[in-house]
Amino acid sequence: MSTLDPAIAARLKRSADGLVPAVVQQHGTGEVLMLGWMDDEALARTLTSGRATYWSRSRQEYWVKGETSGNRQWVRGVRLDCDGDALLVTVEQEGPACHTGDRTCFDADVLLAEGADG
Amino acid sequence: MSTLDPAIAARLKRSADGLVPAVVQQHGTGEVLMLGWMDDEALARTLTSGRATYWSRSRQEYWVKGETSGNRQWVRGVRLDCDGDALLVTVEQEGPACHTGDRTCFDADVLLAEGADG
Repeated sequence: MSTLDPAIAARLKRSADGLVPAVVQQHGTGEVLMLGWMDDEALARTLTSGRATYWSRSRQEYWVKGETSGNRQWVRGVRLDCDGDALLVTVEQEGPACHTGDRTCFDADVLLAEGADG
Repeated sequence: MSTLDPAIAARLKRSADGLVPAVVQQHGTGEVLMLGWMDDEALARTLTSGRATYWSRSRQEYWVKGETSGNRQWVRGVRLDCDGDALLVTVEQEGPACHTGDRTCFDADVLLAEGADG
């Protein structure tokens, strides 16, 4: 039983495993830090605790970002997209967002490099 | 049979339906415009055609963003995250990204409003 506001829960469109992808963006700079997954309860905790909270698909448990590493995410804003199947969470990121030590989880693996002309 | 580079395909971690979420960001401004879904073939087309291409879960078909609406996305860069389960696509967005006419798909439904103090 989730503690999520029923009016929000009614707007969520979850994938088959009950999750919604959450894009995590640094407040102010616009950097995309990572993508996490939330079920209703993780979203409820994120909205009320001020700490970004996800569902770990690999460990099958909730995780409060930074609880172990200290690289905490303080929630600034949360938005739901037009068809209810994605979240945008803006945060103040302490330290690197990626477990590899990189600033973001998208730093290392470039499939197509942006040109410098724009 | 997808035309995706096997070296990239080997790094992708797909959800049960064979898809990977793609965060779409405006080049330069950092705005998060939308979240789409890609299978291997959609990613291959995105990387080679220069036009952002997704798999529509509702219509069960490929869609080239802007093909109907004219609100095209010109691909600038593509990155894969540290564990291979999310893509970050930077684009030049023509017109609004959202089918509602909003600039982004995250403009309308604010679950938690950002303060103005930071």
